[in-house]
Amino acid sequence: MSDNSFGRLLRVTTFGESHGPAIGCVVDGLPPGIAIAPEDFRQDLERRATGRTRHTSARRESDEVEILSGVYEGVTTGTPVALLIRNTDARSKDYSRIAAQFRPGHADYAYWQKYGVRDPRGGGRSSARETTMRVAAGVIAKKWLAERHGVRIQGWLSQLGAIVPEGFDLSVVEDNPFFWPHAEQVPALEAYMDALRKSGDSVGARVDVIAEGVPPGWGAPIYGKLDGALAAALMSINAVKGVEVGDGFASVAQSGSEHRDVMHADGFQSNHAGGVLGGISTGQPVRCSVAFKPTSSLRLPVEGLDVHGDVVEVVTTGRHDPCVGIRATPICEAMVALVLMDQALVHRAQCGDVGEVPPRIPGEPAEGSKKR
Amino acid sequence: MSDNSFGRLLRVTTFGESHGPAIGCVVDGLPPGIAIAPEDFRQDLERRATGRTRHTSARRESDEVEILSGVYEGVTTGTPVALLIRNTDARSKDYSRIAAQFRPGHADYAYWQKYGVRDPRGGGRSSARETTMRVAAGVIAKKWLAERHGVRIQGWLSQLGAIVPEGFDLSVVEDNPFFWPHAEQVPALEAYMDALRKSGDSVGARVDVIAEGVPPGWGAPIYGKLDGALAAALMSINAVKGVEVGDGFASVAQSGSEHRDVMHADGFQSNHAGGVLGGISTGQPVRCSVAFKPTSSLRLPVEGLDVHGDVVEVVTTGRHDPCVGIRATPICEAMVALVLMDQALVHRAQCGDVGEVPPRIPGEPAEGSKKR
Amino acid sequence: MSDNSFGRLLRVTTFGESHGPAIGCVVDGLPPGIAIAPEDFRQDLERRATGRTRHTSARRESDEVEILSGVYEGVTTGTPVALLIRNTDARSKDYSRIAAQFRPGHADYAYWQKYGVRDPRGGGRSSARETTMRVAAGVIAKKWLAERHGVRIQGWLSQLGAIVPEGFDLSVVEDNPFFWPHAEQVPALEAYMDALRKSGDSVGARVDVIAEGVPPGWGAPIYGKLDGALAAALMSINAVKGVEVGDGFASVAQSGSEHRDVMHADGFQSNHAGGVLGGISTGQPVRCSVAFKPTSSLRLPVEGLDVHGDVVEVVTTGRHDPCVGIRATPICEAMVALVLMDQALVHRAQCGDVGEVPPRIPGEPAEGSKKR
Amino acid sequence: MSDNSFGRLLRVTTFGESHGPAIGCVVDGLPPGIAIAPEDFRQDLERRATGRTRHTSARRESDEVEILSGVYEGVTTGTPVALLIRNTDARSKDYSRIAAQFRPGHADYAYWQKYGVRDPRGGGRSSARETTMRVAAGVIAKKWLAERHGVRIQGWLSQLGAIVPEGFDLSVVEDNPFFWPHAEQVPALEAYMDALRKSGDSVGARVDVIAEGVPPGWGAPIYGKLDGALAAALMSINAVKGVEVGDGFASVAQSGSEHRDVMHADGFQSNHAGGVLGGISTGQPVRCSVAFKPTSSLRLPVEGLDVHGDVVEVVTTGRHDPCVGIRATPICEAMVALVLMDQALVHRAQCGDVGEVPPRIPGEPAEGSKKR
Repeated sequence: MSDNSFGRLLRVTTFGESHGPAIGCVVDGLPPGIAIAPEDFRQDLERRATGRTRHTSARRESDEVEILSGVYEGVTTGTPVALLIRNTDARSKDYSRIAAQFRPGHADYAYWQKYGVRDPRGGGRSSARETTMRVAAGVIAKKWLAERHGVRIQGWLSQLGAIVPEGFDLSVVEDNPFFWPHAEQVPALEAYMDALRKSGDSVGARVDVIAEGVPPGWGAPIYGKLDGALAAALMSINAVKGVEVGDGFASVAQSGSEHRDVMHADGFQSNHAGGVLGGISTGQPVRCSVAFKPTSSLRLPVEGLDVHGDVVEVVTTGRHDPCVGIRATPICEAMVALVLMDQALVHRAQCGDVGEVPPRIPGEPAEGSKKR
Repeated sequence: MSDNSFGRLLRVTTFGESHGPAIGCVVDGLPPGIAIAPEDFRQDLERRATGRTRHTSARRESDEVEILSGVYEGVTTGTPVALLIRNTDARSKDYSRIAAQFRPGHADYAYWQKYGVRDPRGGGRSSARETTMRVAAGVIAKKWLAERHGVRIQGWLSQLGAIVPEGFDLSVVEDNPFFWPHAEQVPALEAYMDALRKSGDSVGARVDVIAEGVPPGWGAPIYGKLDGALAAALMSINAVKGVEVGDGFASVAQSGSEHRDVMHADGFQSNHAGGVLGGISTGQPVRCSVAFKPTSSLRLPVEGLDVHGDVVEVVTTGRHDPCVGIRATPICEAMVALVLMDQALVHRAQCGDVGEVPPRIPGEPAEGSKKR
Repeated sequence: MSDNSFGRLLRVTTFGESHGPAIGCVVDGLPPGIAIAPEDFRQDLERRATGRTRHTSARRESDEVEILSGVYEGVTTGTPVALLIRNTDARSKDYSRIAAQFRPGHADYAYWQKYGVRDPRGGGRSSARETTMRVAAGVIAKKWLAERHGVRIQGWLSQLGAIVPEGFDLSVVEDNPFFWPHAEQVPALEAYMDALRKSGDSVGARVDVIAEGVPPGWGAPIYGKLDGALAAALMSINAVKGVEVGDGFASVAQSGSEHRDVMHADGFQSNHAGGVLGGISTGQPVRCSVAFKPTSSLRLPVEGLDVHGDVVEVVTTGRHDPCVGIRATPICEAMVALVLMDQALVHRAQCGDVGEVPPRIPGEPAEGSKKR
Repeated sequence: MSDNSFGRLLRVTTFGESHGPAIGCVVDGLPPGIAIAPEDFRQDLERRATGRTRHTSARRESDEVEILSGVYEGVTTGTPVALLIRNTDARSKDYSRIAAQFRPGHADYAYWQKYGVRDPRGGGRSSARETTMRVAAGVIAKKWLAERHGVRIQGWLSQLGAIVPEGFDLSVVEDNPFFWPHAEQVPALEAYMDALRKSGDSVGARVDVIAEGVPPGWGAPIYGKLDGALAAALMSINAVKGVEVGDGFASVAQSGSEHRDVMHADGFQSNHAGGVLGGISTGQPVRCSVAFKPTSSLRLPVEGLDVHGDVVEVVTTGRHDPCVGIRATPICEAMVALVLMDQALVHRAQCGDVGEVPPRIPGEPAEGSKKR
């Protein structure tokens, strides 16, 4: 990972500020022959977008993706695919007041301390706007994973503030603005969010993601662990404060005899591991969970420092999400997809294509390097 | 991160299997002039070592560090420092039986699926033995961070199975074999572990680490986030299933007005953020928490598959930890230290030494690139 | 280096095809506070551009740089700077005929073999058009190097076909379209190029670059050598077949007593090394030389293969340079500048700012890591 | 490339000083199932070793390779292979005098300026001793390339001082201590070297390397060019001042109609390109040439500076090569092998195994991403 790029072979680089002329990304290392069209990006960008319901920021971006390179006659050519989205609904005036103030809990202060200069318009680079390009890049990864390996990735909101699902049905997740897996609770969530918005406060959320169909063998021991890559990728999303794989922190209170997933001829009988053992995928569904903190841009006044070190009252106007976690589901899915595709390519490099690897009987000589 | 290396400028590469001739690491990118002697590694390696108490594996390694390169007349020269530790207490016979079996919950199966060949002796590369070199490398990072930046790093066990501290006193952590912050509970923990060991089962644990004195400005936006690097580094430790920064998953149920850390002239009034905002350190203590699963190598018989796909009864003999989390504290400290030092170097590269950066007043012209 | 990015801390990623909608680059890792404006790019882009003289391709691009991100109130903010240039003079029809043919000496065939698909319009990604973004990124590096370290970088054409300079005066290099260091020869070069263009053939060229003011200490031993980085960067330019540092291949016939540069109190008495010893800059001017092959896109008919493996007559129409080396001077300068800035940042990370390093007397203890 | 590592997927990290306890390397990313034994390293290490003939340094090292990790039951397991060689013939006393002096033309001064501290014993890290591990790592790459892809790599000395081969026969290269391709000249070379050694001076050399059987498609456009990787790798060898691919600098005076390699149904009719077009292998033999400067460690007295800045007479005793280029042939072969294997893995990651890629007819739809 470098500052604005990630991935070892599938390299995603993003750029752009919230209220600059545009945001974009460069996706390098894509295999040739992947069919891509601007329409492919619509659905996931729509799922992530603001301004679709009253429960997210009122900012309304068209999010029209322009493919600048790397695609010829509808398919990837193996050269870098650059995607560009123009910012159309930027309102810099909203932010002029806080240019000289630090919003408690916001990245303002940290950026200022690091760089000595910052773009205050809409949080500049630290805005959730950047995640748009993660979702766009993720669309390509999801497509490749599905077509080549049959991998299906689905996320949902598993906690909103203190509210947890009272039932679980993945088929309803896309039918409500909260990506909530239990339809009966949706009205209650609507009421909860309405009250929260009126209060001017915000709340956190938890998002779960599952990837089914991941073949065994992706990832690597030690520092190249699949779960390590997932943790870095998910923690890189704004406002994320925690990441779990499989049972995560619940494993702490478990016994080994309870946690270990028994395998029969028909496969694993449970999935406490979350599909990863020793940093390598097992063939079980890969399952992770992400904690989003409540956003810090609130209408509620609070004491803060200004650039001169004086204490001032900070009130954040502008347009903000009372709960960023709500539309984080497609972002988490995208990061999981990008990590999995990168790992698939790294695995193919070292061990050849999935299924090519012939396990050997201990004690017997290996078939030699010709196999790889 | 590559498979067996991590860090952008401070590059740590480890090698070696549990029962091979030796384990070692290469630490590249170290500034010149750091005083290092073999004795410097003793204390932390002792804290991590097995065989010191009945609560850890009985394996007894001398863990004598040989400095092979990069040090001349007692100080680093800027060339790579290679450290080597010979394995002296390897007992391969213990593992012969399970060479053709897959222990449920163990990395055996994943390695087999990925590589088609594996070293079954003591778990080979997937053994906790590898973490010895992380601790050794971490010793150098801790020293540099303390001497140059006054950073102090301390970890402790914050949960053992279902047991949580009933009091908190960092000064007692080093006085008990559990790195437990509440002395009165130690006898109860001893009893708990004795019973667990007799039962042949294992249990998970949670380790917390705090780094005090970290200056603001370390880390980077987006994919180079300090917390992202911490997450990847901590998740890369064997048996880790979850990572939190600051309030972590507890943030989900918090309101924004509760979570955001207010800053006064005398600094932050709280630390829900865990010392990181927007991926960049704030000057607050950096605080993270790590979840360790219960180990899967148990004496309790369990059904498992063998390399032929047949179900067999798996019983793991050999020497194992009933709770790997107990001696994970120095490992977590080491990973935090290595990440912080790497980030310090990356920050110095882009922005110059800490304190060199003159914040500017918005609207006024910057002092120009001469400053950097 | 990855496929379309280079640099360790100053990461430059380029994208775009010759006849696609646009070309662009992302420059990541820039220190904050560097003043940048669109006008800054004009001069060097003009120096590299086609269509300015009859001696280069007739393609006429406006090369208007749009700064998409990373700059606020005229200075860099430390976030990635994305630059975009729209392609305005693309004529795809020119290339339709060769879509199914492989031009001998051209990358067509290699791309086809690697990817199984390619963008034939103007050579797609393999076009010299890509170098436009190297020059743009190089402008920022040149500015930082000059302002912060007083480094001055100048290139010139040191050979055109078989013609070599009969005199040497850097002050005239910018006054002729050939970047030639001897004014008297310019008319002869004009005549030579006119004849070459009429003949439909092409010729190679050699470009020299010198960087003065480079402080000692940049670079690293072994694989991070400054000259190694220069070699990779220069060899990555289209049509380059050789790279030399200092006396280069002439060193082969030299004796050690002749080659070694003697140092007196007033500095080095010669510069056979080209400013680099052991991979690290010495304080002498950094000097390198680059060989450009003759372009393969010729009007002269030649036998070639088509995608079906049949031999066909290949005639390249379209607009091409009879000698790409002529306008390669600013490209080589840009690559040297980008490498030097990257190395300056890497050095600052490990050893602190230039001048900070206090050499020590052998035998005496080092001042310890506090210095770094 | 980082300071002491190189390769994207096949990562080689070396460590160790000339007169430290040992030198070693870690080779990460190796495919599993490659048969390796200590004996495999003998031949190439012997070819590179000093003390075998009077024409190289008198230092006599046993160069016994210990395999520390990554190999089980004779084959690679996919985990890092660490190789260690103890230094047995170190004579530090030889170097005590020059500890406070800078030898003109030697890396002493540059190291001192960069780090402020250095290991003066035998040149420390800058000694040719480091190249031993390149050769060892190269042995594994050569084996894999030969077994899996039928790639054969052979180098030879193509110039010694001003002497060039008067005939060319690869079959005699291994029969003389100079890797010279024309047997009749060997006596003259012996006489030349004897006179040179007596004179106390040194001379440069040129080494050529050819890799036959490289399939088309390895490498990448732009910054990931195969020739760029070769240039960086070869320039990273001590004393190298220039690198050429194919006709190299000779291309400058060639015409395009002369340089471009025509392809018939039976393949290429010439190889001016040196097997690389657009950064990607063509299927032609990959051919490169390397320039080695004369060593700077001479018995001949010369003025130099000491660490106090005073001019002193420098006389280098100790054991040195009058021409390092003589035993550089296996080193160059090793670097070419390591680069080719790394590129083979990177290519397999993006495009699948060699031969898997089905070229498509322009205009027809691609078969879609399932192919990759």
